[in-house]
Amino acid sequence: MYTIAELTNMISTEIGQIRYKAQPANLYTPIQYILSIGGKRVRPLLMLMGYNLYKEDVSTIIPNALALETYHNFTLLHDDLMDKSDMRRGHATVHKKWNENTAILSGDTMLIMAYQLFNQGVENNEARTAFIEATIGVCEGQQFDIDFETRNDVTEAEYMEMIRLKTSLLLGYALKIGAILGGASTEDIHHLYEFGEKMGLAFQLQDDLLDVYGDPKKFQKKLGGDIIDNKKTFMLINAFLRADQKQREELHHWVNSTSCNEEEKIAAVTHLYNVLGIDQLAKQKIEELFAVALQSLDKVQVAEEKKAQLHAFANQLLERKY
Amino acid sequence: MYTIAELTNMISTEIGQIRYKAQPANLYTPIQYILSIGGKRVRPLLMLMGYNLYKEDVSTIIPNALALETYHNFTLLHDDLMDKSDMRRGHATVHKKWNENTAILSGDTMLIMAYQLFNQGVENNEARTAFIEATIGVCEGQQFDIDFETRNDVTEAEYMEMIRLKTSLLLGYALKIGAILGGASTEDIHHLYEFGEKMGLAFQLQDDLLDVYGDPKKFQKKLGGDIIDNKKTFMLINAFLRADQKQREELHHWVNSTSCNEEEKIAAVTHLYNVLGIDQLAKQKIEELFAVALQSLDKVQVAEEKKAQLHAFANQLLERKY
Repeated sequence: MYTIAELTNMISTEIGQIRYKAQPANLYTPIQYILSIGGKRVRPLLMLMGYNLYKEDVSTIIPNALALETYHNFTLLHDDLMDKSDMRRGHATVHKKWNENTAILSGDTMLIMAYQLFNQGVENNEARTAFIEATIGVCEGQQFDIDFETRNDVTEAEYMEMIRLKTSLLLGYALKIGAILGGASTEDIHHLYEFGEKMGLAFQLQDDLLDVYGDPKKFQKKLGGDIIDNKKTFMLINAFLRADQKQREELHHWVNSTSCNEEEKIAAVTHLYNVLGIDQLAKQKIEELFAVALQSLDKVQVAEEKKAQLHAFANQLLERKY
Repeated sequence: MYTIAELTNMISTEIGQIRYKAQPANLYTPIQYILSIGGKRVRPLLMLMGYNLYKEDVSTIIPNALALETYHNFTLLHDDLMDKSDMRRGHATVHKKWNENTAILSGDTMLIMAYQLFNQGVENNEARTAFIEATIGVCEGQQFDIDFETRNDVTEAEYMEMIRLKTSLLLGYALKIGAILGGASTEDIHHLYEFGEKMGLAFQLQDDLLDVYGDPKKFQKKLGGDIIDNKKTFMLINAFLRADQKQREELHHWVNSTSCNEEEKIAAVTHLYNVLGIDQLAKQKIEELFAVALQSLDKVQVAEEKKAQLHAFANQLLERKY
C-alpha cells in the first residue's frame, strides 16, 4: 500500500509526462499550462487510494486518475471564464493569459482528453458510466450555482444539493471509481462514495466558513469574497432564517446595496453572523457531516490500517490537527 | 436495408425522443433547442448507412448515431459563440437567445451527453476510441481555423488539412464507426473512411464555391461572407498564387481594407476570381476529390446495390443531378 505522499508524487510525475501534440500550439499550450500550475490533486489521489484498498499495483489505473484531474481542471478553466476570474492558484487564468475563445476551445479539448485518458485506462463499463455520471452532475451543479446568483429564495436544501453536485460528487465518484476498478463489493463502493460525498460537503462548508473567518495568511482567496458577491451560502441563508425583523432589514440592505464600501459590508455582515451564531452553526454542520462521512468509512469491509490512511486524508483536507 | 428516407425519419424520431432532466432547466432547454432546429443529420445517417452495409438491424446503434449528432451540434453551439454568429438555421443562436455562459455550459453538457449516448450504444472499444479521435480532431481543426484568421501566409495544403479536421474527419469517422460496429473488415473500414473524408473535402470546397457563386435563393447563408471575412479559402489562396503583380496588389487592397463597401468588395474580388479562373479551378478540385471518394467506395467489398445508396447520398450531398 502506498502512502499519501507516494501517491501524490506519482500523480505529479505522471501529469508532467502527459504528451501533447505540438500543433495546434494555441490549443494545447493552455491545457499544459493549467495542468502545470498545481493544485492538491485531490481527485486522482482519492481514486488511487480507493483502488489501493483492494489492489496493490495502482499503475494500471493512472490514466483513469489523470482523466479525473484533467476533467477537474477543465471545469476550473470554464468556470473561471464564466465567473470572469482573473487569477487561479496565483497565476493568470487562461482567458486572461490568452483570450476567451482559447479558453472555450482548449477547455472543450481538455474535456475530450479526459475521456481519452479514461479510455486508455482499465476497460470497465461500470467505471466508465460512473465517470460520465459524475462529469454531467458537476455541470448541473455549476448551472444551479449560476441560477442562484439571481434568486433570493434559495433554501438550505437547494444550496446543499448545489454544492453536492458541484463539489462533492466528484470526490465521491473518485473513490467510487477507484473501488470499482479495484473490484470492491457493491456495499463497499456505496460506502466509499458516501464517505467522499459527505467529506466533500464538509469541505465546501468549511471553505464557506473560512471565506468569512479564515486566517488571511492561510486562506488562498481574498477574505469576504462570498459576502461581496452576495453568494447564497449556507451561512447567508441561515442568517436570513435566524434574523429578527431589524436584522433581516439590515441583511437585505447589504445584499441589495450595489455601491457600498467593501470592507464596511464585510464587517457588517460578519458582525451579523457573529450575533446570530452563524459561525457556530456552520461548524456544527461541518462536524455532523464529517461524522457521517466517517461512519460510512467505518462500514467499508477492509482492514482498519488500510482505512486509516483515508481517515488521515480527510483530516488533512479539513485541516484538522487531531 | 433501409432507404435514406427511412433512416432520416428514424433519426428525427429518435432525436425527438431524447429525454432531458427537468432541472436545471437553464442547462437542458438550450440543448433541446439546438437539437430540435433541424439540420440534415448527415453524420448519424452516414453511421447508420455504414453499419447497414453489413448488418440489417440498425436499432442497436441508434445511441451511437445520436452521439455523433449531439457532438456535431455541440461544435455548432460553441463555434457560433466563438464566431459571434447571431443566427443558425434561421433561428437565434444559443448565446443570443440566452447568454454566453449558458452557451458555454450547455455546450459542455452536450459534449458529455455525446459520450453518454455513445456509451449507451453497442460496447466496442475500437469504435469508442475512433469516436474520441474524431471529436478531438474537430477541435484541432477549429483551432487551425481560428489561427488562420490572423495569418496571411496560409498555404493550400494547410487549408486542406484544416477543413479535413474541421469538417470531413467526422464524416469519415461516421462511416468508419458504423462499419466497425457492423463488423466490417479492416480494409473496408479504411476505404469507407476515405470515401467519407474525400466526400467531405469536396463538400467543403463546394460550400466555399457556392459562397461566391451560389444561387442566392438556394444558398442558406449570405453570399460573399467568406470574401467579407477575408477567409483564407482554397479560392483566395489560389487567387493570390495565380495573380500577377497588379492583381495581387488589388487583392491585398481588398483584404486589408477595413472600411469598404461590402457589395463593392464582393464584386471586385469575384471579378478577380473570374479573371483568374478560380471558379474553374475549384470545380476541378471538387471533381477530383469526388472521383477519389468514389474510387474508395468502389474498393469496399459489399454488393454494388448496397453501395449504390452511399453513391446516391454523395450525389445528393454535393447536389449533383446526374
